[in-house]
Amino acid sequence: MAELRRDPVVGRWVIVETESPLLPNNFEKSQHHWREGECPFCYGNEDKTPLEIEAIRDPKTQPNRPGWQVRVVPNKFPALQIEGDIDRRGLGIYDISSGIGAHEVIIQSPYHHKEIPDLLDEEIENIIRMCCCRTEDLKKDKRFKYILLFKNYGPSAGATLAHPHFQLIALPMIPKNPGEEIQGARAYFEFRGRCLFCDMLKQEMQEKIRVVVENEYFIAFCPFVSRFSFEMWILPKIHSSFYSTMTPIEVASLAKILKDVLLRLRLVLSDPAYNFIIHTSPAKQDGGLVHYHWHIEIMPKLSRVAGFEWGTGFYMVSTPPKLAAKYLREIK
Amino acid sequence: MAELRRDPVVGRWVIVETESPLLPNNFEKSQHHWREGECPFCYGNEDKTPLEIEAIRDPKTQPNRPGWQVRVVPNKFPALQIEGDIDRRGLGIYDISSGIGAHEVIIQSPYHHKEIPDLLDEEIENIIRMCCCRTEDLKKDKRFKYILLFKNYGPSAGATLAHPHFQLIALPMIPKNPGEEIQGARAYFEFRGRCLFCDMLKQEMQEKIRVVVENEYFIAFCPFVSRFSFEMWILPKIHSSFYSTMTPIEVASLAKILKDVLLRLRLVLSDPAYNFIIHTSPAKQDGGLVHYHWHIEIMPKLSRVAGFEWGTGFYMVSTPPKLAAKYLREIK
Repeated sequence: MAELRRDPVVGRWVIVETESPLLPNNFEKSQHHWREGECPFCYGNEDKTPLEIEAIRDPKTQPNRPGWQVRVVPNKFPALQIEGDIDRRGLGIYDISSGIGAHEVIIQSPYHHKEIPDLLDEEIENIIRMCCCRTEDLKKDKRFKYILLFKNYGPSAGATLAHPHFQLIALPMIPKNPGEEIQGARAYFEFRGRCLFCDMLKQEMQEKIRVVVENEYFIAFCPFVSRFSFEMWILPKIHSSFYSTMTPIEVASLAKILKDVLLRLRLVLSDPAYNFIIHTSPAKQDGGLVHYHWHIEIMPKLSRVAGFEWGTGFYMVSTPPKLAAKYLREIK
Repeated sequence: MAELRRDPVVGRWVIVETESPLLPNNFEKSQHHWREGECPFCYGNEDKTPLEIEAIRDPKTQPNRPGWQVRVVPNKFPALQIEGDIDRRGLGIYDISSGIGAHEVIIQSPYHHKEIPDLLDEEIENIIRMCCCRTEDLKKDKRFKYILLFKNYGPSAGATLAHPHFQLIALPMIPKNPGEEIQGARAYFEFRGRCLFCDMLKQEMQEKIRVVVENEYFIAFCPFVSRFSFEMWILPKIHSSFYSTMTPIEVASLAKILKDVLLRLRLVLSDPAYNFIIHTSPAKQDGGLVHYHWHIEIMPKLSRVAGFEWGTGFYMVSTPPKLAAKYLREIK
């Protein structure tokens, strides 16, 4: 089992692989390359993954056989292990916890070469519904405090398998980044009595220049304080702190805007690598938070994070968000 | 002039290039490639850089001509601009500041192919002395609150020029990362009455298993909560919050350990890319801080930072620090 260790300076957690560590010679091979061989996520290769957790299937088809549209399996190389108890202890100035968590893979469709922009609206809705469903299921496990849904697209964004998929990781603590975000949003709410993200949404809709596209329930824009060139955020227009409780009409609206913005990104930047992350509130929040607003952050990987960023937490953006939004908005 | 923008959620700053932005077509070329053509940092090409700020030179040689050992020039493509006043203002929920700062390049030596492990001890001492000297000079400028010294080695660590160099960036605010580090260290000091880093040093020296090498004034170890495989920290054994006031004997000691650990890193991991960052206290601290301890963090770039890390602030380490230290310690 991996070990979770907490940095005593800033409270950052790391997952240390203690059982099958990489040795110096292993890196060259694993580094920056796609895993080769037959795709374990394609039709007919269902036996190449761990047993499926859930799937949307044609009637009368068997689990772990073809006939599925969206399929969820445990990650074959999980960052954390699902079985066991959370065991916290100290070691001098350091804190340690057992590497308990869930790590699932949501295989978007049987098509190896179809990403979200290439799918039908109904197919995308199925993916979103499955993501919500798995998240709601993991929320029931009392050991998990935060559930992260994300996607790495392209090798330079950290993807190791080409077949389109999302990843879901359930964690036994609220991690640093969402913790800080929620704390910042709470401070804003306490000071102004309004949701910071609702205010951001209002300002973006008034100024219009950074908006890429919007529909009835969602808006996509290049945030004023983008960290990366062509960074895009998608916000629900109606305040909500958790994504997995979306209504069917919101799911349909999100499917449409997702397909639209990811197609624009592909066209404007010649199919760039990106990380796609859902920012949401912690698992244990009955009734939702007034001060936190779930959203999606899409971060294209067009340049490298280097010493300046690591040393400061600053970011350098070469394309102003206003200009990026113009390109993304006007592409045909 | 670039614009500094502050994120209203977590207080992160970004530098937005507003004057000569990158357009969609520019990324493919600039991405992940070394700049080509004649090296502006080599002997005889002194006219290819902006005018030199300072240099260690042979007697009777002229500035901006050959005859130097270490040479400091302004960055030709600075992230921030040295001239102007700091002008802070709001724009709705966002905060903006003018892009004032310094961005200098410390050319380590005239040798295009000699990195620190290939230089003589005295040559490395000269580089360190020059870094300290430039930092002390920038500290005098009242506009600057934090001075960052770092090095990107190798294209995958963000280096764009092959000729060995350090970069120095002076910022008009204390950035998020060092701010959090100092705050965390202060909280520890208030609780225990001891410096967190002095305690870390003591624990590492007792346990020994993560120590790579030590000498009279410095210790190099793989921290228990490494974010990256084969990450190394170098700490001064005597408590000090600022690096640029080192004594000559400490400079000599640092030169030796730097050469040693960077050579080990090269040998164990076949010359990996890395980021090298000095973590130090803010510029305006008369007499130093009892709770902060300057140190160097060396982060090899063996894997990619992906959606999980961006979404959580967690890191995944494939080689436990104990094992990494064993390889680094035992290499011949």
